[in-house]
Amino acid sequence: MSSIGGYLKRNKKRHLGELAELLSIPSVSTDPAHAADVVRAAQWMQARLQRAGCSTAEIHRTKRHPIVYGEWVGAANRPTILVYGHYDVQPVDPLELWRTPPFEPTVRRGKIFARGASDDKGQVITHINALEAHLQGGGCPLNVKFLIEGEEEIGSPNLEAFIKRNRKKLACDAVVVSDTAMLAPDTPSICYGLRGLTYAEINVRGTARDLHSGTFGGTVANPANTLSRMLATLKDARGRIAVAGFYEKVRPIARAERRRIASLPHSDREFARSFGAPRLDGESGYSTLERIWCRPSLDVNGIWGGFSGEGAKTVIPAEAGAKVSMRLVPDQSDAEIFRKIKRHLTQVAPPSVQVSVRSLHGGDPWLTAPDHPVMAAGGRALKRAFGREALLVREGGSIPVVSTFDRLLKVPALLLGFGLHDDNLHAPNEKMELSNFYRGIETSAYLMEELAADGTAEPPRRRSGPAKPAARRARRGRVYSGK
Amino acid sequence: MSSIGGYLKRNKKRHLGELAELLSIPSVSTDPAHAADVVRAAQWMQARLQRAGCSTAEIHRTKRHPIVYGEWVGAANRPTILVYGHYDVQPVDPLELWRTPPFEPTVRRGKIFARGASDDKGQVITHINALEAHLQGGGCPLNVKFLIEGEEEIGSPNLEAFIKRNRKKLACDAVVVSDTAMLAPDTPSICYGLRGLTYAEINVRGTARDLHSGTFGGTVANPANTLSRMLATLKDARGRIAVAGFYEKVRPIARAERRRIASLPHSDREFARSFGAPRLDGESGYSTLERIWCRPSLDVNGIWGGFSGEGAKTVIPAEAGAKVSMRLVPDQSDAEIFRKIKRHLTQVAPPSVQVSVRSLHGGDPWLTAPDHPVMAAGGRALKRAFGREALLVREGGSIPVVSTFDRLLKVPALLLGFGLHDDNLHAPNEKMELSNFYRGIETSAYLMEELAADGTAEPPRRRSGPAKPAARRARRGRVYSGK
Repeated sequence: MSSIGGYLKRNKKRHLGELAELLSIPSVSTDPAHAADVVRAAQWMQARLQRAGCSTAEIHRTKRHPIVYGEWVGAANRPTILVYGHYDVQPVDPLELWRTPPFEPTVRRGKIFARGASDDKGQVITHINALEAHLQGGGCPLNVKFLIEGEEEIGSPNLEAFIKRNRKKLACDAVVVSDTAMLAPDTPSICYGLRGLTYAEINVRGTARDLHSGTFGGTVANPANTLSRMLATLKDARGRIAVAGFYEKVRPIARAERRRIASLPHSDREFARSFGAPRLDGESGYSTLERIWCRPSLDVNGIWGGFSGEGAKTVIPAEAGAKVSMRLVPDQSDAEIFRKIKRHLTQVAPPSVQVSVRSLHGGDPWLTAPDHPVMAAGGRALKRAFGREALLVREGGSIPVVSTFDRLLKVPALLLGFGLHDDNLHAPNEKMELSNFYRGIETSAYLMEELAADGTAEPPRRRSGPAKPAARRARRGRVYSGK
Repeated sequence: MSSIGGYLKRNKKRHLGELAELLSIPSVSTDPAHAADVVRAAQWMQARLQRAGCSTAEIHRTKRHPIVYGEWVGAANRPTILVYGHYDVQPVDPLELWRTPPFEPTVRRGKIFARGASDDKGQVITHINALEAHLQGGGCPLNVKFLIEGEEEIGSPNLEAFIKRNRKKLACDAVVVSDTAMLAPDTPSICYGLRGLTYAEINVRGTARDLHSGTFGGTVANPANTLSRMLATLKDARGRIAVAGFYEKVRPIARAERRRIASLPHSDREFARSFGAPRLDGESGYSTLERIWCRPSLDVNGIWGGFSGEGAKTVIPAEAGAKVSMRLVPDQSDAEIFRKIKRHLTQVAPPSVQVSVRSLHGGDPWLTAPDHPVMAAGGRALKRAFGREALLVREGGSIPVVSTFDRLLKVPALLLGFGLHDDNLHAPNEKMELSNFYRGIETSAYLMEELAADGTAEPPRRRSGPAKPAARRARRGRVYSGK
């Protein structure tokens, strides 16, 4: 234990140098111009896994960007964890808002600034460094597999098929994901729930061409007016989503969980101030953290139609459109909610327009038992690295692959986030606190020890594992009596 | 009369050549790159006025594009008309949809295709040709002044000041404007009413920056959702504008006018088919022509916010905006309606967003007495040129300068349109029917005779003239008992 700590201390400089090396590869997965850079990042990952001591380090082609797989399985009869992460990054625009170039990693006041610093390069390699540390010290107490994809930022289109084809290769006792944030600085957190997502695009067409608003105004349905009316029907005055049956499957928040959430450090005032809102606004009857973690939401993510340039153009647009997404909570499902919103929008549309609603993207919510032994091991590892008790949190965002693992591998997932909410993910000046990067490596190393010692995580078994009963318990709403 | 007819017949080819010459100058007023072309078009106009026989032909600088003024005032003790028009044109994009280049005038099947063919180059020069025809024949029966601006397509920002400064120079008995359309092909029309306009831009700001819809969804007012709700409150389910006091000053349509409008040739089915609408939609209780001509309307001309690219971006936009315009009818005024909509939008906005509403553009409605002697003279001129009785029509569009003339010069305006509704104004493949161009020249020449013979249009007088009493009568709603 202390030997691991000493080793990690001595290797800080090298770990930072390696992180900077990876961050300087512009592996923007959505941009075809960066396809070769994405491959370069995959090759970097493969080489790093080999150097760390993995006996296998492979690059698997997909229809678009490769998946990197690596493993060290030298701990016979010990449990196995599967670390999931991604080496691709978001685009960088608006480039002019970056203080230093996004692919020239720069350290300022204890933070490393670069695209991908927190999401997810700086998080996923903590686990590689941790495995290496154990192997350098004589051996790792459990088996470690790595599944690192290059398409997370474009919705992981080829990951599910890969997991289905490679169930045996990926067999494990727990999945470990570091792609989330801590509740606050110096506040180690374990995430036991994620919201799901239904993302739809709506198009409203009025006429075959744009019309002059003087010559035609008052005689035709204006698609932009009509779209606004349709969108306005999606929520009522109390902030509730007014789509029939929308809340049907929403699990109420258990009293114990409400109490625990209420006890967490959070200030509405500071929260609102951090992004400059005049005031918060949401579904009545719920606290801010409950709204983000345990209640569904609905947002217009984009809206367009007609003329948006300087000055005045007197046009009735031929069409208008919007992107609308909903965050889902258990036991809502993407497929069911998409059906409901599509039916709603079709019903409220007047016959003077043509409406299309299509699904762009989606994923089911995920919730696990916060008192599962794997969580407890994670909590002990965090406490050793951060010197503080870990908090149990949920997240409002979605990592669809987590529920995919749940469904296909049937093992629990442990979400250990080393990011912060001000890391500027998907925005200019993304950064990672170096202290969290180093403590992340420590946490991962300790986690391997804790899980191995724990005895609750058993050697790989097919089609069972502790996840299923935990999920069932969660559905009965009793697990929140824990921490 | 027949001598004028013969002369015009002999000069058709020259008139067409001159029109093509003018149409080949890309005088796009909104585009700074075309500023020199706008000047070139003004110089062309000046030279053409001189060649036609004007004793004065001047170019007046403004802050942006010049105003051309010309006059022939050799008919002592005879009435004077002021012809208003514009030599600037709309931009041409989308350029790829033009069958032939917009500034290479091309004749196909009796139509000349070019930007400005109908709006307004091909209409304004009909009057220059008509004056020339009279002068070539020995003299014009009345005095003719020309006011041809280069900023109509950008809202005539310098015209009102010019008129105010040059009231004496512009003194006349009637203003003649050819910048409108006939109700249908071969249907000569006189327009006695235009709608006004209030054009506003609304901006809704929620937060200082875009937010991730997972991490924040459900806790803040989304500006795009909020804007949609706000816009939805502007109209009720029956298509009426739901802004307090909006209809307060709207003059009801007199029974006689409703009868006359109902007698006009119009088919809802063909109208809807012409622009591919599944069905018409508007304020209940009014016919289509009444909705366009006599009732106010409200349209979202543009709406924007958040992400509108391909795919899914899970963002809560920091702000959203819309352009909203209203067409006004007597006795609404731009200033009053802007105040009311601004108040309405401010009142319906929740305190969790910041809203700004600003006026971009506007103009008051205009309505004159359709039984005024000047209209009657116009009707006789049209009948001689087209061989058919002229119809009395209104237009749904706005030509703010017409009410400016009414207010500043206090003389009646005669709107003689030679365009058609399918002329593609402000759109690709703008065209003018050559038959209407030639009949327009004839009409103008006959109009000069009819007005001179009529005796009702008196020599220039300051601060009076027939417009005022007509307007007053119109306000009592009795004038519609005419034709």
